[in-house]
Amino acid sequence: MNELPSILLNAAVDEFSKLPGVGRKTALRLVLHLVKQPVENVEKFGNAFIRLRNEIKHCKICNNLSDNDICEICSNQHRNQSIICVVENIRDVLSIERTQQFNGLYHVLGGIISPMDGIAPSDLNVDMLVQRIKNENVKEVLLALNTTMEGETTCYYIHKKIYMLNVEITTLARGVSFGDELEYTDELTLGKSILNRQPFIK
Amino acid sequence: MNELPSILLNAAVDEFSKLPGVGRKTALRLVLHLVKQPVENVEKFGNAFIRLRNEIKHCKICNNLSDNDICEICSNQHRNQSIICVVENIRDVLSIERTQQFNGLYHVLGGIISPMDGIAPSDLNVDMLVQRIKNENVKEVLLALNTTMEGETTCYYIHKKIYMLNVEITTLARGVSFGDELEYTDELTLGKSILNRQPFIK
Repeated sequence: MNELPSILLNAAVDEFSKLPGVGRKTALRLVLHLVKQPVENVEKFGNAFIRLRNEIKHCKICNNLSDNDICEICSNQHRNQSIICVVENIRDVLSIERTQQFNGLYHVLGGIISPMDGIAPSDLNVDMLVQRIKNENVKEVLLALNTTMEGETTCYYIHKKIYMLNVEITTLARGVSFGDELEYTDELTLGKSILNRQPFIK
Repeated sequence: MNELPSILLNAAVDEFSKLPGVGRKTALRLVLHLVKQPVENVEKFGNAFIRLRNEIKHCKICNNLSDNDICEICSNQHRNQSIICVVENIRDVLSIERTQQFNGLYHVLGGIISPMDGIAPSDLNVDMLVQRIKNENVKEVLLALNTTMEGETTCYYIHKKIYMLNVEITTLARGVSFGDELEYTDELTLGKSILNRQPFIK
């Protein structure tokens, strides 16, 4: 697989296989697909990424990816400005938006503390968050990070940075997922879901 | 997932998810990876495909993808010019090259007969193959197509086109794969492997 009979083909396969989770076999399959497409489609394909990379911005308020200096969510006056949901990345923003259960603003950290991946607390936009809480009328900060070791560590770090700022700090409810069987639910989750039991609604 | 908060992001995800086997979730993951890369890397990425599509050629002899008018294999005078191995696409060429057991030339059909996918016999480069056999000193044509219905159909079609050309027509040996258990080998393959049994070599 190492030596393709064409320098152009090799270069294209190399580029594809730099993407996470794409091996050289998959890369070759995708590249051969592109070779069969009309020239203008392939130009559109290649230029979409170049344009994206050159023109995309980070929202100056919440650090979310955006076409403009201020993202759509931050500039929407109908959203509740007094609650900030702290997430790891834009994919988490999209997941939460899809639930249609959150009407506040976001704060995108751009990662979570992970010594293994070389991400230190200083790499996250926590100072920006502190400034927002200080300067704006923020009443609640919802920490919506993953329940992994790294997520928990990041939660503790942020908590330490903001607990004296007179703001309510909350996290997502932990419990048994819809569709989950109790038999296979881990005991930590099941235990939490018993401690935090809710009134039954008919 | 449909509505990303950025037109640029949407465009890039759209382009990625046009690739076979890439859904919008994977596309978004790959696009967000690209956003984090240096601008020059993303430009290299995008331009690799555009350059490939604009500059890649099909070998005028065997139809394989090549940087030049004649591919490396066809222009290699050390290869056996009297045997042509007929394959579906360049990936099959690469697979056979990796075995290091074939020193002849190739003929790349660019597909196999598949009414379901709208590929008719006229879409394949069979006429080019017939011309090669007529004009050059070809002694053997090895049909190395997949053992699927479409592959077999294509074999019969090519056979019909070339059997009167005074050339030996062969196909790959069918048999039990290395590492396969007889118990799970289909009866057609196992039957063939008994009929075509070989002298045991110590």
